[in-house]
Amino acid sequence: MANALPAIETLSSSDALNGRIVEFPVDRPLITDGGGCVTPLTIAYQTYGELNAERSNAILLCHALTGDQHAANMHPLTGKPGWWDVMVGPGKPFDTERFFIVCSNVVGGCLGTSGPSSINPATGQAYGLGFPVVTIRDMVRAQAMLIDHLGVDQLFCVAGGSMGGMQVLQWAASYPERVFSAMPIATAPKHSSQNIAFHEVGRQAVMADPDWRGGRYLEFGVRPEKGLAVARMAAHITYLSEPALQRKFGRKLQDRAAPTFSFDADFQIENYLRYQGMAFVDRFDANSYLYVTRACDYFDLAADYGGSLAQAFKGAKTRYCVVSFNSDWLYPTSASRAIVHALNASGASVSFVEIDSDKGHDAFLVYEPDFIATTRGFLEAAATARGLPRASETRAK
Amino acid sequence: MANALPAIETLSSSDALNGRIVEFPVDRPLITDGGGCVTPLTIAYQTYGELNAERSNAILLCHALTGDQHAANMHPLTGKPGWWDVMVGPGKPFDTERFFIVCSNVVGGCLGTSGPSSINPATGQAYGLGFPVVTIRDMVRAQAMLIDHLGVDQLFCVAGGSMGGMQVLQWAASYPERVFSAMPIATAPKHSSQNIAFHEVGRQAVMADPDWRGGRYLEFGVRPEKGLAVARMAAHITYLSEPALQRKFGRKLQDRAAPTFSFDADFQIENYLRYQGMAFVDRFDANSYLYVTRACDYFDLAADYGGSLAQAFKGAKTRYCVVSFNSDWLYPTSASRAIVHALNASGASVSFVEIDSDKGHDAFLVYEPDFIATTRGFLEAAATARGLPRASETRAK
Repeated sequence: MANALPAIETLSSSDALNGRIVEFPVDRPLITDGGGCVTPLTIAYQTYGELNAERSNAILLCHALTGDQHAANMHPLTGKPGWWDVMVGPGKPFDTERFFIVCSNVVGGCLGTSGPSSINPATGQAYGLGFPVVTIRDMVRAQAMLIDHLGVDQLFCVAGGSMGGMQVLQWAASYPERVFSAMPIATAPKHSSQNIAFHEVGRQAVMADPDWRGGRYLEFGVRPEKGLAVARMAAHITYLSEPALQRKFGRKLQDRAAPTFSFDADFQIENYLRYQGMAFVDRFDANSYLYVTRACDYFDLAADYGGSLAQAFKGAKTRYCVVSFNSDWLYPTSASRAIVHALNASGASVSFVEIDSDKGHDAFLVYEPDFIATTRGFLEAAATARGLPRASETRAK
Repeated sequence: MANALPAIETLSSSDALNGRIVEFPVDRPLITDGGGCVTPLTIAYQTYGELNAERSNAILLCHALTGDQHAANMHPLTGKPGWWDVMVGPGKPFDTERFFIVCSNVVGGCLGTSGPSSINPATGQAYGLGFPVVTIRDMVRAQAMLIDHLGVDQLFCVAGGSMGGMQVLQWAASYPERVFSAMPIATAPKHSSQNIAFHEVGRQAVMADPDWRGGRYLEFGVRPEKGLAVARMAAHITYLSEPALQRKFGRKLQDRAAPTFSFDADFQIENYLRYQGMAFVDRFDANSYLYVTRACDYFDLAADYGGSLAQAFKGAKTRYCVVSFNSDWLYPTSASRAIVHALNASGASVSFVEIDSDKGHDAFLVYEPDFIATTRGFLEAAATARGLPRASETRAK
């Protein structure tokens, strides 16, 4: 628990690329599930809003596979709005006028938090594959160290979609007393065989690129861009629903009236995927892609509790709102139902909403009025239960 | 029409790898939809059973994306049974004691029929990307030349699954009087946006491999094996249903009791996919993979008939049996229904069966009793209508 920890000096700083940075002293390493040790552990994060005097209004947002800490500010690399800009801000569901919102880059990531592109102090070179393989639990352990550092004992809410949702579930299981409410969104309690299969294709695409150089590409001043782009293209298909692809692209040709009978990007969908692949390599590290996909693949929350998912949540007072999207085939509603069944079996307080959307898995990242209303309603009720001022009261101040 | 063609001398031969081979004289080229010209056109094929005196018992089997002419004999490269061994043979639905069965390697393929790995007579080198991009209609045009060569005017049946099913539809549209009955199986009347997307990922994986060398790898004595393996892995996921993957592999570990916290193939599904990728590169040419995927992407039968699929089939007397599998998410039942609706609108004789199977798209290649019974029943009725002897009569001979 946070309040049991002795005050230990950490290095804090900030920069334009990574936002705020905390570096834990070498005697506070992250010991990973695989027996690895990351020290010094660095965590890059952003905060929005103010922590109240009671320290009771903190929300942790957990990002998805290739997300980062820039949830609600302009992304320093792409110049685009943060990944949850539709959800986080003044008057938005994650209301920065009411809540103190924290979002940190996961361990294994590549935007300031320790990961394979960080310098290994033992060698003076980037870790590469020398970085320990991490799990979702390791990500959450590191986040807990950050939350301690921020002086927050109990989080008002932990929320996130996809891999972020896995972290939400892990938070609730690992630190039940520190999570007042939880929103696992478009996620699953374990990675399925098909989920692992798609991730493995992505990893093989990266590792097939000769510029990957056994993971030591940074030492050689190269990057496996082509392999990483292919990995992203394959993954991107799984983020979109078939009907949305059909509606958006169908068989429309790209800037031409007839097929060229060549291997050019005749179809808009080809052009779109190629763009997605190319844009991705500008903002993401190839080794980090291996690490974050691996963390998802290893995720099987029930396995840590004797095979019983309900056992993972047993006895906790956390309030849950589980959200799925009916066109999400990556983490389909059936996976969310499995979470809900386990929560019901554990006696937890849980509401479950399946949002009607044709946007597929990525629906949680885009403007979906029903999802926004659901989130707003859940947080409002939880805030009341937690004794936080109502939204109108906050705004009147 | 076959009987309108003058007798032209062609070169026939056979070898262990390719089976029978016919080389058309240079003055009988294949002119492709894209305006290309393949000459001499070589077609490699296999036959099973005997053509009857009336020449009325010929069945053309059309293979899928990476299939070949070896439908019912041991594959010369893999040593495994032919790809439709469960369906073709004495007493099997495609009964080699009753029917004269022909299966040819598609144009653009790599097992004896003209394709990008064939020698371009103009250069003395492999065509590479100099081979014309072909369409499903080009494949069917070449097959029609073969069927002419074999002296068959009307095929008793044209059957095939997946890309083979597209050829079946194209045969029925292009040569309605030459197709007495048709079985398009697990297929679609056009490639969807998602279909194109997966194919584009595969092509990009091949082309990202530096050993692809702009398609000229054969000249350099190398092959883009890693890229092609990644392409196959991605495609292979689409051939299997999520429930089948879960049943067969789930999260089972490969020859180990615990995860290794590494990027080894910890999970059986990873090991399986890697094997599929490696095995594929031993039997398939990377450029051919580009060509056959492109042919599928260009397939949109209705587009050739003013956007009306029914128009493609109008006025024909062909009898149809359309088959889909309920767990096939690559070419789902909805795609088969679109075919059936068009056939109904065109006034065709059509039966439609959705087979209950959890095996996904590849169900048409494996032992599925309901599918076998459906095929047997359809062919028996068609044989009666065609005036062919009953199965029992054939066997009594």
